[in-house]
Amino acid sequence: MTKPLLNTPDKQTDSLPGLFLRYRAEIGTALRQAITPQNSSKEAIAVYDMLRYYMGWADTEGNPIVATEGKYLRPTLCLFACQATGGSIEQAMPAAVALELIHNFSLIHDDIQDQDETRHHRKTLWAVWGIPKALVAGNVLRVVADFSLEELIRRGVDAETALGVASLLTEAYLEMIEGQYLDLSFEGQSDLGMQDYLGMIARKTGALIRCAFTMGALIGSGDKATANAFRSSGEALGFIFQVRDDVLGVWGDEKTTGKPVGADIRRKKNSFPVVHAMSQAKGAEKQSLLDIYRQDEVAEGDVGRVLEIMDRAETRGCAHEMAMEHGQDASDALESVELEPSARAEIEELIQFLVVREH
Amino acid sequence: MTKPLLNTPDKQTDSLPGLFLRYRAEIGTALRQAITPQNSSKEAIAVYDMLRYYMGWADTEGNPIVATEGKYLRPTLCLFACQATGGSIEQAMPAAVALELIHNFSLIHDDIQDQDETRHHRKTLWAVWGIPKALVAGNVLRVVADFSLEELIRRGVDAETALGVASLLTEAYLEMIEGQYLDLSFEGQSDLGMQDYLGMIARKTGALIRCAFTMGALIGSGDKATANAFRSSGEALGFIFQVRDDVLGVWGDEKTTGKPVGADIRRKKNSFPVVHAMSQAKGAEKQSLLDIYRQDEVAEGDVGRVLEIMDRAETRGCAHEMAMEHGQDASDALESVELEPSARAEIEELIQFLVVREH
Repeated sequence: MTKPLLNTPDKQTDSLPGLFLRYRAEIGTALRQAITPQNSSKEAIAVYDMLRYYMGWADTEGNPIVATEGKYLRPTLCLFACQATGGSIEQAMPAAVALELIHNFSLIHDDIQDQDETRHHRKTLWAVWGIPKALVAGNVLRVVADFSLEELIRRGVDAETALGVASLLTEAYLEMIEGQYLDLSFEGQSDLGMQDYLGMIARKTGALIRCAFTMGALIGSGDKATANAFRSSGEALGFIFQVRDDVLGVWGDEKTTGKPVGADIRRKKNSFPVVHAMSQAKGAEKQSLLDIYRQDEVAEGDVGRVLEIMDRAETRGCAHEMAMEHGQDASDALESVELEPSARAEIEELIQFLVVREH
Repeated sequence: MTKPLLNTPDKQTDSLPGLFLRYRAEIGTALRQAITPQNSSKEAIAVYDMLRYYMGWADTEGNPIVATEGKYLRPTLCLFACQATGGSIEQAMPAAVALELIHNFSLIHDDIQDQDETRHHRKTLWAVWGIPKALVAGNVLRVVADFSLEELIRRGVDAETALGVASLLTEAYLEMIEGQYLDLSFEGQSDLGMQDYLGMIARKTGALIRCAFTMGALIGSGDKATANAFRSSGEALGFIFQVRDDVLGVWGDEKTTGKPVGADIRRKKNSFPVVHAMSQAKGAEKQSLLDIYRQDEVAEGDVGRVLEIMDRAETRGCAHEMAMEHGQDASDALESVELEPSARAEIEELIQFLVVREH
């Protein structure tokens, strides 16, 4: 049975697996250190205020606020993989920070692309400062990530591994951007195939999550085979994460997700539920779905109709089943790697959390 | 006496110093190789067509066209510095390519920020494909630059130098973005001080030009002192380049610059001429300038008035004088470096070209 959750950050963390809590404070500190102006002029410093606002540490005037931070999924995966394979938190932290910064960079640009004015109950950067400054602020965050990686060498990571880590991040970053491009290309396409959809999310969301596990294991073990096992595992985790995200986008509880039920139907988002329902629905139902999604806007009454069709297509159950299967893959991929039993148990807990999470 | 120039790329290159012509073809080839999809899906490949359009190699449908390439200033400086300090073109090419890609990335995002619909007589990316896709295409170009740097190692550059080169590029890139942010912050400020202006262009334009000279010398010599001398010299070159750009933005010949006389006055661009005139004008003239620049749009009749005030402030002569002084600095900075007489002569020719160029 899932515990009821309240919409406060403190309560939310209650249900997170212990490994998220273990690194949380240190990640927060390291991120704050990274997002600090270096030799910047008075005026350029203002861009860092924008970034501190976006990270949830400041209001729009730059005044500190009680932080409303996220789960730090990607840095947590990176630090965990490093520790589990014999490395230290300290060594992997620059890579962990870079991942979270690149993730947030992509969200800032995503918000511009999608014209989303709010995210997690807060106004987006472009909605406050306009598109030009928001665009630049995103680019600053992206380069702060590069600076963070330079720190690896200073923490005793050898040059070859450091270059390998940089290369992994570049690869994942390109895939992520290509995924964003695909997502834009698919917009307005009302009959997207499941393979196209899965290929898109593997890039847009999966690449960075996979990269988190791979980089952590490479830093921790210095061994390519180990890093590759974590890479396969991370790929599966990325899939589980996004499919669950898509499920929450349709059936999530507004209190925990910040979005009303049916939100992703209303905005005609190409996500797992609609792609699945389209692929399963037949005859009049299929026609009905197509008609609804071909309208410029989805009428409120049609949201219920779409939900009904998804119910009959057993979309939700099917998403859960696919997530479970990928959970098994994520676990199997690490069989060949030598891990402490406690680390293996934490991976199982992590998979379980990603499959059922409510936020 | 300046030779009359026609607005065709072939004629334009006639007046370029020989060192631009020397590397031109190889830079073009290397850039084309860099902007090639890697494991991209069919749909993602379309983003590379956008990039090939922007680089001047294709039309909006992706069909090859007779290329209208730029001067390749930054890669040329990088290759030249590498050769002059004992390295090969081949070793520095990945860095040279990265510079040109990052420069073009910044132009793509700049066009979005400034809502410019044309650049060099061609429609900008966002004007053809919309802001979201143009934004993503810019980001793809940025990451292709990172991939290019990875090639350094494969060309026998040692890991320490390769990391040093990456670090230089990251530093310059951040400065460039901060400069873009400053430029946005200064918009609408009708009485910008010369110091603020110079600080902004040193970042926005100067950083990447300085970086080109520094990276080339670091790869060529492997020596930090040599790289630092080229850094100082490159900083001066960046200044000359931008001040001349600003002069051409006001007094340039439309046939060669693509902009009518007074273009930067019409768009109220914060550039050297207006900042200088504002700082020099007194009494009624100063008031007149302020009044004109405080309007939402500069009336056609006011353009002539501004040009008059600039004439009386001797803005153009002053810009030339400052460029000459920085030319001396660019030359002096390399005094301590051992260079072939032919290389030194080419640097003088380069400086002279940057000071007087008409396009």
